Amino acid sequence: MSKNLTTREEDYSKWYNELVVKADLAENSGVRGCMVIKPYGYAIWEKMQAELDRMFKETGHQNAYFPLFVPKSMFEAEEKNAEGFAKECAIVTHYRLKNDPENSGKLIVDPNAKLEEELIVRPTSEAIIWSTYKGWIQSYRDLPLLINQWANVVRWEMRTRLFLRTAEFLWQEGHTAHATKAEALEESEKMMNVYADFAENFMAIPVIKGLKTETERFAGAEETYCIEALMQDGKALQAGTSHFLGQNFAKAFDVKFANAEGKQEHVWGTSWGVSTRLMGALVMTHSDDKGLILPPSLAPIQVVIVPIYKNDEQLEAISNEVDVLVKAFKKLNISVKYDNRTTQKPGFKFAEWELKGVPVRIAVGPKDLENGTFEVARRDILTKEVVSKEGVVTYISDLLAQIQKDLFQKALDYRNTHITEVNCFEEFKTVLNGEGGFVSAHWDGTAETEEKIKELTKATIRCIPLDRVEESGRCVFTGNASSGRVLFAKAY
Amino acid sequence: MSKNLTTREEDYSKWYNELVVKADLAENSGVRGCMVIKPYGYAIWEKMQAELDRMFKETGHQNAYFPLFVPKSMFEAEEKNAEGFAKECAIVTHYRLKNDPENSGKLIVDPNAKLEEELIVRPTSEAIIWSTYKGWIQSYRDLPLLINQWANVVRWEMRTRLFLRTAEFLWQEGHTAHATKAEALEESEKMMNVYADFAENFMAIPVIKGLKTETERFAGAEETYCIEALMQDGKALQAGTSHFLGQNFAKAFDVKFANAEGKQEHVWGTSWGVSTRLMGALVMTHSDDKGLILPPSLAPIQVVIVPIYKNDEQLEAISNEVDVLVKAFKKLNISVKYDNRTTQKPGFKFAEWELKGVPVRIAVGPKDLENGTFEVARRDILTKEVVSKEGVVTYISDLLAQIQKDLFQKALDYRNTHITEVNCFEEFKTVLNGEGGFVSAHWDGTAETEEKIKELTKATIRCIPLDRVEESGRCVFTGNASSGRVLFAKAY
Repeated sequence: MSKNLTTREEDYSKWYNELVVKADLAENSGVRGCMVIKPYGYAIWEKMQAELDRMFKETGHQNAYFPLFVPKSMFEAEEKNAEGFAKECAIVTHYRLKNDPENSGKLIVDPNAKLEEELIVRPTSEAIIWSTYKGWIQSYRDLPLLINQWANVVRWEMRTRLFLRTAEFLWQEGHTAHATKAEALEESEKMMNVYADFAENFMAIPVIKGLKTETERFAGAEETYCIEALMQDGKALQAGTSHFLGQNFAKAFDVKFANAEGKQEHVWGTSWGVSTRLMGALVMTHSDDKGLILPPSLAPIQVVIVPIYKNDEQLEAISNEVDVLVKAFKKLNISVKYDNRTTQKPGFKFAEWELKGVPVRIAVGPKDLENGTFEVARRDILTKEVVSKEGVVTYISDLLAQIQKDLFQKALDYRNTHITEVNCFEEFKTVLNGEGGFVSAHWDGTAETEEKIKELTKATIRCIPLDRVEESGRCVFTGNASSGRVLFAKAY
Repeated sequence: MSKNLTTREEDYSKWYNELVVKADLAENSGVRGCMVIKPYGYAIWEKMQAELDRMFKETGHQNAYFPLFVPKSMFEAEEKNAEGFAKECAIVTHYRLKNDPENSGKLIVDPNAKLEEELIVRPTSEAIIWSTYKGWIQSYRDLPLLINQWANVVRWEMRTRLFLRTAEFLWQEGHTAHATKAEALEESEKMMNVYADFAENFMAIPVIKGLKTETERFAGAEETYCIEALMQDGKALQAGTSHFLGQNFAKAFDVKFANAEGKQEHVWGTSWGVSTRLMGALVMTHSDDKGLILPPSLAPIQVVIVPIYKNDEQLEAISNEVDVLVKAFKKLNISVKYDNRTTQKPGFKFAEWELKGVPVRIAVGPKDLENGTFEVARRDILTKEVVSKEGVVTYISDLLAQIQKDLFQKALDYRNTHITEVNCFEEFKTVLNGEGGFVSAHWDGTAETEEKIKELTKATIRCIPLDRVEESGRCVFTGNASSGRVLFAKAY
């Protein structure tokens, strides 16, 4: 391993950027704003995909695939959505290159190959999907239509950061159609709950469920449910959104169905998505100054075994012992790596696997062979224990479950101690400029106040928590009446 | 089901198009040349992906993800590759839309948002990946680098057909880097063998392994291995390719490594891919005039159960019996659907599941309940049998394995009877214009002859089979000397 990471204390943002690259998760590419997801990072993403995909299918959804391109006329059919994405989209205008007559060996865009209609690279797929649904939905028997897509999307962001904000990113987008408003609302809420379940129980990231304000809502949605997480630097991160689209897209694309009485009605819609942004949330929730900390459920390698030896004979004896262990782990579906590289010393290997966040490390030396023991180290709290080889497999299996739980609890404790109720604007600013976190405050419900607070403090309303209690109070900024608190924070 | 399919006899091409749409595999979208892969078709593709992904990982490959866009200067770095794809690529030139001042509510491309350098939507990813590998490879210890990507790519095809040729398609592309030529050649051949194994043992499609001629080779490759399948209309279909890239991309992107002696050398490369085109091969290899025929390993539903009843009481009794059966199938990982829709009659359901290619259908009526039997029908050969309920699960499990075998054997028999050795050009034309299939003929090894034969007959050299025997002869067209036969065919 090269020199140490910048610490979080020194520069949180730099720590994050360094960690993502050094731990082999991702790197910037030669294409502006686009990242390369490296094999180790992609292996984590694949685990997220597999679990989410299982959850979507369990709740009755099917996967499908829709085109990458959206013709401009289709893109602009739902006006609010179009307006929301028009300022940051990649546009295909030509379909051929030709040899540059003035510069041999070079290619230029062929002006004779201009498209009649420009194509937008999808920033999200509501337009293309609802234009397709028109052909799929005739009667109430065709509903609900519950579809998900795994895809890449492009938003021309000016300032990009690995995973958190990139011009191209990977995501899934669910798009459903329903016969009634109630059913569509239920679906939106259900998928927010699926995301929260996934974040908390699989990624060990505690989240707050809530509704977005009108200002922060998805362009084209009537209501946006979200889950909001808190990073270690006190900034919030939106980890997933689920939108109730009302009949907006059904009206824009003329998607109607005959109800049981034969009457034509517009369909009700939802859409919901999570993206590779979750990789950023994962890194920033759990990791420390030594590197990544991965919850066992997401770790491509859950256990790494490092032999400590002075000669080939010792290595052979250790390897024989380890072979048995590896087989036992594989039987339990525990993913294990025996790092028997002869080119690197144990200290180097320890640092490397710490950097990469492998939850459990086992070290075995000649002493251990004599004593029938292993040295077991936890990555999350950096403790070591000597464990007898009898029962070590069960011990590790239980330990992985314990680590998963502990990581969630630690993140939850941090989050809970970083929700501060404030009742005046001075306090509001003091908290935001100090420890940060969520600030729970009364707000008068106007977009104007929201905007002013944002201008003055950079904090936005992350959500109106679903579990908030009705409480009459005075807006922290204007002093106008308010019926409950909302959560503000600076956010990624 | 709406009216019957066009038969293969009537119009093979029309039969294919209708079948793909009616069986809910895919449909054309509102975007020129791009398809929508519908849930039933996508479920088949997911099964292909899962199996291929398992095979790639078993042979030591890891997944990663690289950008969708390739800057023009990067695209043209490897000249042959650039030339091969320049004429059919989608080009992004702008990154913003704005409101049309002359047409309220409409959007136009913002001329002030022109990119400094145009971006090509990847038609294949060698350029972007080798530009990345430059940073990943320093020493022989970094090799081999064995990476695969699941992605969408775009080639601006003028005449498109669902699955077979679409502007956007889904595929996987492997890109590997090696220290020696021998190792890279071995990798190319190995992956061709993986593809052949997959096609034959999973898709039940027999293939011929071979090398492409220089004319038919991948742009930028030094050698292209391929697997070639034969469709029921006597036309060949290239089902997968694996390229030995030599040092072409390493030189174009300056990718060098220090060998064990510390000397700098250029890396050797391979790339290999299969795509959603395989869906077309699947349909055209096995299906008939009643609809799809799916090999059990690829069928989203392997067994469908249809109740035959006159009243609710009968339906309930049947459903009780079926519940037991369904549980038993699920235990064996046999995917089963109980079609208890009350809105459709059995005849309608039979036709629907025939159209969708479900390998086995079980019908249960009151008589069966009395006798303790089920009626079991095979989709592939349209036979029916009465099977006693004791042992029916094992019977079906064995039957699925048998169907998988039979489908392969049937396709193999067809293929083998459609390889015709010819020794003069008249015969060559007669075979091609008659039954079609592969024509095995001597060729003088020149691109000129290849081109003339193509002009006159539309047949191309599909491959130089790897297992061909040395045999001196005379070119079927020029009469010049030849050392062995190659396979010609008209192709998709």
